[in-house]
Amino acid sequence: MAKISIIGSGNMGQAIAGIAAKGGNEVELLNTSHAGQAVTGDIVVLAVPYPSVATVLAQRGDQLAGKVVVDITNPIDFATFDGLTVPADSSAAAEIAAALPDARVLKAFNTNFGGTLASGSIGAETTTVLIAGDDANAKALLSGVVAAAGLKAIDAGSLKRARELEALAFLQITLAAGEKISWTGGFAVTA
Amino acid sequence: MAKISIIGSGNMGQAIAGIAAKGGNEVELLNTSHAGQAVTGDIVVLAVPYPSVATVLAQRGDQLAGKVVVDITNPIDFATFDGLTVPADSSAAAEIAAALPDARVLKAFNTNFGGTLASGSIGAETTTVLIAGDDANAKALLSGVVAAAGLKAIDAGSLKRARELEALAFLQITLAAGEKISWTGGFAVTA
Repeated sequence: MAKISIIGSGNMGQAIAGIAAKGGNEVELLNTSHAGQAVTGDIVVLAVPYPSVATVLAQRGDQLAGKVVVDITNPIDFATFDGLTVPADSSAAAEIAAALPDARVLKAFNTNFGGTLASGSIGAETTTVLIAGDDANAKALLSGVVAAAGLKAIDAGSLKRARELEALAFLQITLAAGEKISWTGGFAVTA
Repeated sequence: MAKISIIGSGNMGQAIAGIAAKGGNEVELLNTSHAGQAVTGDIVVLAVPYPSVATVLAQRGDQLAGKVVVDITNPIDFATFDGLTVPADSSAAAEIAAALPDARVLKAFNTNFGGTLASGSIGAETTTVLIAGDDANAKALLSGVVAAAGLKAIDAGSLKRARELEALAFLQITLAAGEKISWTGGFAVTA
């Protein structure tokens, strides 16, 4: 069990709060109306759209020292829908990790549509959360939270793999936006 | 029906030849022993490891003018297993397209492990071939070949999306190499 703070109460924030609660963890769900309230969780999930991350880090950066910070964002260029807004050799997670040198940053949940997190399944498969990061203990902690809710967690490697996770998610979003798959479908991880 | 030339008779070349034959297409499977034999297919699949593509293009570039050329490669840096050998803002497919200005280059099959092409399934799902390219007719032709064999084909967008397809495949290969998934598993596309 862990205490989990989720910043952002939209579709993804709510789905991740549901997962955390299902596993018996203590959950703190914060949105912009709680800007003055410090986060108290051991795990802090940044469940805001990528353009809002900078604001959250400016407000709460000091509070995140020592914590496991989970980046779920996809930095899509919505003006062109033809790429990401982060440099091609970087990732949103790498930029967040650089801004938070005293936090243990993980990339997770960005390859999952909210509906598949809430239902726990994608097609005939159990929903799998891919987790990348440089801190093995942090990854194990988050994997435990995911598994306790009945979902699968897979260690996807170092934080450098966030680049591939963001590419995969971008592709998945273009397929759903183009009606090639539904928003409850996408890439299911099969063993 | 189409005439399909496959250059490379390894695991992937054989699996793709099987798909093409299953759909009733005429198949020509060429390997290095056929270096002097010109390709005759309307669709030419480059089913060789990425480092061998340059040799094939040097030998056969002139033969590929006007043809649908299918790049299935994953340009993984096997020295580090920590990235791709193509520039971060490019792809193997983009480089092949630049080298073959008179061909219609598609990226396809690179996100499929050979076993899932041969079996036609991945977990409980039908194997899906993601196809990216800038020529709609070429994509439709290859999609027809895939569908005729009982697999699914999805148009994954312009050739620029090869970058994301190569990132997805690289991630998938790291997961299999790390024994997080099997070589008959991976990312199944669910509708």
